[in-house]
Amino acid sequence: MRSQAVDHHPELGAALDHLLSSGGKRVRPAVALLFGEMLGASQEKMITLAAAIEMLHTATLVHDDLIDGALLRRGIPTLNSRWTPAATVLTGDFIFAQAARLASETESVEVMRIFSETLATIVNGEITQLFTSRGLASREDYFHRIYAKTASLFQTAAEAATLLTPVNEKYRNKARRFGYEIGMAFQIVDDILDFTGEQVTVGKPVANDLRQGLITLPALNYVEIHPNDPDMLAVLNGSRYDEGVFSRIIRSIRDSGAIQKSFDEANQFVDRGLQALESMPESIEKEALERLAGYIVQRSI
Amino acid sequence: MRSQAVDHHPELGAALDHLLSSGGKRVRPAVALLFGEMLGASQEKMITLAAAIEMLHTATLVHDDLIDGALLRRGIPTLNSRWTPAATVLTGDFIFAQAARLASETESVEVMRIFSETLATIVNGEITQLFTSRGLASREDYFHRIYAKTASLFQTAAEAATLLTPVNEKYRNKARRFGYEIGMAFQIVDDILDFTGEQVTVGKPVANDLRQGLITLPALNYVEIHPNDPDMLAVLNGSRYDEGVFSRIIRSIRDSGAIQKSFDEANQFVDRGLQALESMPESIEKEALERLAGYIVQRSI
Repeated sequence: MRSQAVDHHPELGAALDHLLSSGGKRVRPAVALLFGEMLGASQEKMITLAAAIEMLHTATLVHDDLIDGALLRRGIPTLNSRWTPAATVLTGDFIFAQAARLASETESVEVMRIFSETLATIVNGEITQLFTSRGLASREDYFHRIYAKTASLFQTAAEAATLLTPVNEKYRNKARRFGYEIGMAFQIVDDILDFTGEQVTVGKPVANDLRQGLITLPALNYVEIHPNDPDMLAVLNGSRYDEGVFSRIIRSIRDSGAIQKSFDEANQFVDRGLQALESMPESIEKEALERLAGYIVQRSI
Repeated sequence: MRSQAVDHHPELGAALDHLLSSGGKRVRPAVALLFGEMLGASQEKMITLAAAIEMLHTATLVHDDLIDGALLRRGIPTLNSRWTPAATVLTGDFIFAQAARLASETESVEVMRIFSETLATIVNGEITQLFTSRGLASREDYFHRIYAKTASLFQTAAEAATLLTPVNEKYRNKARRFGYEIGMAFQIVDDILDFTGEQVTVGKPVANDLRQGLITLPALNYVEIHPNDPDMLAVLNGSRYDEGVFSRIIRSIRDSGAIQKSFDEANQFVDRGLQALESMPESIEKEALERLAGYIVQRSI
């Protein structure tokens, strides 16, 4: 990934180093690598694909953080906190270009196609979010949103890897299904951690989404249990910001069954993901994918 | 091109309609279509490729105008003049995704590869421009810059079209050469029109580039003829903005041989482009490409 800025402006190399040094869990490329290895893809192509997926993810984060004005990501300063908006927009574009180039190096037209469709899905989801007025979203809206935001790329990671193997026809749909289900679970857990985590570990204020008027699954479940909570209704109606209200809501949600119910839903997604894996060849990669699916709901950050 | 926003958020359709209604000369897709038709590509694939090229171009313009804070393009309001920066960034990203999808529909991995490399070249050029301090650029810097900005996509339009024909091996390099040469000429003429045009027709202030500290060929040629012009030296040294200085410089450049010398250079690029065409099959498309090359230096806007 780092070598992608060679022959280009030194500032791009510096930006790429900065972005990639932040680590991150690299769950998406791990999914791709495990499917590819399990199903017999060439290692070289798989590494190229895995890098393409992480670069696509990174590019969307760069533009996302700029749009949200986020100052930290994974505990390190975002690009937009240090660079001008112009440089940040262009660095994101450059990383898109490198993701596309890496994808083309898989030499699979179908991989290229699902890549470009996934980017369209992600961006369309963000635009929908931008133009949707705040307030109570339906569960359906929520699931659409987290599909676009997260599950679509997990799905593509698994599907694209399978496309590069000789058993593509046999496993493509199941791989895609696995990616979709664990991607949905992954985002639900992110949304739970937004309420249960501490600001120190998560790196942003608790209930950050709700503060921005964005309703996620724990809040949806809380409203179903307590439809008349005056604090929650005030937030949903866009009342003037009041930290006392938020503190009470965060405590109420934590103390309600809403968190557990959200975990249960995440676990249902994981279970469906594991079912999709069942017919896959017994292998250490299959075991690793099973553990990875379990990790997604057990992780604390 | 307009159908690319179907199934996505309505605001994206509105944005795409707005962008595409502005017209523009569509020179890049015309180059692709003429090469494809001349050399026997399937019409359906050529239309897909031509749309991909125009979409890639449009996406870079959307981000460009945002970065420059431009309010008009081709006489109509830019997206960023009406939308928030967030929506503008995302719309550009969406158009990149559609360009990539259209490129993948050509089913040529090589087309995908040169597409992604061209995007990297364009963006790298913009980043270089962003991080380069103002002042006198060398001719070499200038030619690098206009290659990245303009000629690279003309080159790709011609090359990618040829890749979709049965005579790819025979004509690829010559087509690429033609695209490069007329793309360089096209940008030189744009840079001449920046000095010779009227604000009304060009849609932006005369000598807009120079006002932003960007030295183009007419200014480079002027400095070679009059190395000690105090007004020009003041601008190059980044003196305080003074409209009187700019008025004098614009008049001086117009009255000097710098404009004619720039036209001569553009014509040399066109001549080399025409040479690259010589061995191509005699056809109405070849004649149209010759006329298009001529139009590039003769156009007044």
